[in-house]
Amino acid sequence: MSQILEEVLSANQNYAETFGDKGKLPLPPARKFAVLTCMDARLDPAKFAGLTEGDAHVIRNAGGRASDDAIRSLVISYKLLGTREWFIIHHTDCGMETFTDEIIRGLLEKSLETAKIDETGWHDIGSGPGSSEAYFIDWLTIGEQSKSVYEDVKRVRFHPLVPKNIPIYGYLYDVKTGKLIEIPQATEIGKVQ
Amino acid sequence: MSQILEEVLSANQNYAETFGDKGKLPLPPARKFAVLTCMDARLDPAKFAGLTEGDAHVIRNAGGRASDDAIRSLVISYKLLGTREWFIIHHTDCGMETFTDEIIRGLLEKSLETAKIDETGWHDIGSGPGSSEAYFIDWLTIGEQSKSVYEDVKRVRFHPLVPKNIPIYGYLYDVKTGKLIEIPQATEIGKVQ
Repeated sequence: MSQILEEVLSANQNYAETFGDKGKLPLPPARKFAVLTCMDARLDPAKFAGLTEGDAHVIRNAGGRASDDAIRSLVISYKLLGTREWFIIHHTDCGMETFTDEIIRGLLEKSLETAKIDETGWHDIGSGPGSSEAYFIDWLTIGEQSKSVYEDVKRVRFHPLVPKNIPIYGYLYDVKTGKLIEIPQATEIGKVQ
Repeated sequence: MSQILEEVLSANQNYAETFGDKGKLPLPPARKFAVLTCMDARLDPAKFAGLTEGDAHVIRNAGGRASDDAIRSLVISYKLLGTREWFIIHHTDCGMETFTDEIIRGLLEKSLETAKIDETGWHDIGSGPGSSEAYFIDWLTIGEQSKSVYEDVKRVRFHPLVPKNIPIYGYLYDVKTGKLIEIPQATEIGKVQ
């Protein structure tokens, strides 16, 4: 068993031992909202947004992007589980700003092993076989954070499966301070129509 | 400003005030692993897996499914940010077991408002216009949890962009106890090849 697996299972055992009443929580989120944000390890949405178990749906992917899959999750969140307000939260210093579709496609075509970044850009350090499969994926990279928040709120706002009465708030999480910074243009376009 | 928005911003202010040294955390996950799990409000992966800020990538969607978007995120996680072990964690009492593609498509075609479930199944309670757009989405519903964990670990294991040396662990989170239960067939197929 790997050290990580041991650590995770041991932490889980401690959590289960002090689980208390949480086993009685109902399925639908008590506070009726959902957060879409980035998978970044530095972000803990429960901590930065004040959530406890049972409060809110949390959807996360690379960049916190309003991908088709995030929209699938958001639609299930309101239609079947009753959420009524949504937050889309990207963050400063995001990995998605450090590359382009062209870069990751080229890296994966050369090798599947981990690449490294330095001041000259991304470099492959692996030698194994790569794959051209990456050309078939839109990697949803980010050019400028406040623009990506705006674009994502806009996409969700005008998606044909999203009701006009759900407000969508656009924020940027600052990894240096832990603060949520509003992107007013995003919140404006995300307003109830 | 809505009550939820006020509460989230106020909780965020408290978090930022006690942020300490976390502003110095590097971008790549310190413990070099990623977790893919469900958006369910009752799940707090940081708590049930013992994560602190900076430790691990957390990817979440409806069901914790190995969707194309989850695979996009996992590939970025290892190729550019160096994770070396992955967990796929579904959970008991998942909302994704309560409906089928046919049901959610029918519900959304009738109305975009929230539906309700009772002992006779899902019912639309809205009256506004619906959309047939839901027929173009695979909702990735779940029939049986241990099977969905297995199928998802298998999909990731054999994806052409996933290197054979990343172990993928398949677990089910029990919402009644907080415990992670291994799905041995999933972990077996997720082994390093």
